[in-house]
Amino acid sequence: MILARVVGTVVSTRKEEKIEGIKFLLLEKIDPSTMKGKGDYIVAMDCVGAGKGEIVFYVTGSSSRMTEITQGKPSDAAIVAIVDEIELEGKLVYQKDAVPSH
Amino acid sequence: MILARVVGTVVSTRKEEKIEGIKFLLLEKIDPSTMKGKGDYIVAMDCVGAGKGEIVFYVTGSSSRMTEITQGKPSDAAIVAIVDEIELEGKLVYQKDAVPSH
Amino acid sequence: MILARVVGTVVSTRKEEKIEGIKFLLLEKIDPSTMKGKGDYIVAMDCVGAGKGEIVFYVTGSSSRMTEITQGKPSDAAIVAIVDEIELEGKLVYQKDAVPSH
Amino acid sequence: MILARVVGTVVSTRKEEKIEGIKFLLLEKIDPSTMKGKGDYIVAMDCVGAGKGEIVFYVTGSSSRMTEITQGKPSDAAIVAIVDEIELEGKLVYQKDAVPSH
Amino acid sequence: MILARVVGTVVSTRKEEKIEGIKFLLLEKIDPSTMKGKGDYIVAMDCVGAGKGEIVFYVTGSSSRMTEITQGKPSDAAIVAIVDEIELEGKLVYQKDAVPSH
Repeated sequence: MILARVVGTVVSTRKEEKIEGIKFLLLEKIDPSTMKGKGDYIVAMDCVGAGKGEIVFYVTGSSSRMTEITQGKPSDAAIVAIVDEIELEGKLVYQKDAVPSH
Repeated sequence: MILARVVGTVVSTRKEEKIEGIKFLLLEKIDPSTMKGKGDYIVAMDCVGAGKGEIVFYVTGSSSRMTEITQGKPSDAAIVAIVDEIELEGKLVYQKDAVPSH
Repeated sequence: MILARVVGTVVSTRKEEKIEGIKFLLLEKIDPSTMKGKGDYIVAMDCVGAGKGEIVFYVTGSSSRMTEITQGKPSDAAIVAIVDEIELEGKLVYQKDAVPSH
Repeated sequence: MILARVVGTVVSTRKEEKIEGIKFLLLEKIDPSTMKGKGDYIVAMDCVGAGKGEIVFYVTGSSSRMTEITQGKPSDAAIVAIVDEIELEGKLVYQKDAVPSH
Repeated sequence: MILARVVGTVVSTRKEEKIEGIKFLLLEKIDPSTMKGKGDYIVAMDCVGAGKGEIVFYVTGSSSRMTEITQGKPSDAAIVAIVDEIELEGKLVYQKDAVPSH
């Protein structure tokens, strides 16, 4: 699974009918050692009610169809978790709802 | 799913018989933060009647076979949506049919 | 699907028995904006009788098993079309059997 | 499969229900020729009880669902082995529990 | 499929039980235009009795499970052929058991 930040939304009227009603979020992959964006963006289907600014991880490929919302659908990226904490090399590098120190 | 612009077409007479009659579009991946092409091209099967210049997103891998047009076919990239709007960090970075500001 | 040029062949005597009798072609991925090779090579199973020098597109992953020749086989890249024409940004950047202009 | 070091953990309260109870480890891919991290991080499901600092290899894509813990789940990366030894070009470049020479 | 050289082995005692008894080889991807390693390493399951120094090609993803040895197992890379000859742009760039010219 890949760590990313929810940075926006993508709206489409004309789309494959199987994906009607699904919410498409724009994600920017992040580097957990800096918690900064990598400038690499993907569109993912939301399975957990993720909101803008939140850190999530998403699952790619056929595995992204293994959720109640995405099964049988043409999805190659699905958000499956909103991240609360990331601990890296013994340090807490991210904590949801913590006041950022900068 | 990956954001891209339809930049052309690919024509083939001699091809696997399962993909007869399918339209192959040439896509250039885009960076939504600039809306510019990344110089990275792929060939995708069209499932939504996308036209040249349009911003779309396509699905990769086995999931690209989860559409009416591509099922059971040797497809690893299928266009599943024509994009109307992209919102990034609170700004509307793309709006279909909007007059470009530059 | 990915555009590539057939640049050679790979011969193997000792191989998984399911892939006996299959022709393995060496492909170099191309950039359609220049039609030049990208220095990135892969080995693909030939499903369309592609010959050296031809521009083809191949399909990756599980979808590469969706052809008569490759089904059930350990294939992750299968050539499914010989390209006749590529049109990019309104220009015909490749035409099979055309005399190269340089 | 890809070699990586376990460098941390990722905690999520709100997640797809199928992945409740699974342990998510943060991995940094390593280059076995130097045994150093490559600055490339992924989140993997743990299938073998891996601990921080250990060298493991993980499996990607649909194959990551071929374990008792991950089957049917939205997983695209699962740790399937804790590495004891890596031999490269005739040299033992890694040995678990060996005292590091630097 | 991807060309690589067998450069070593990976040993693991604690691993997913489905992969007990399988031989894990360390591969370095090669560039066939130079036959040199690219510094990019992966761990693959051996299906053909490949030995150190040999040039092989391996198959990735779900297709790597399409062999007698790997079926149903958490494998994303399986060696399916030992290469005898590679011909590139009309030149024989590799011949197994040939005396290297340098």
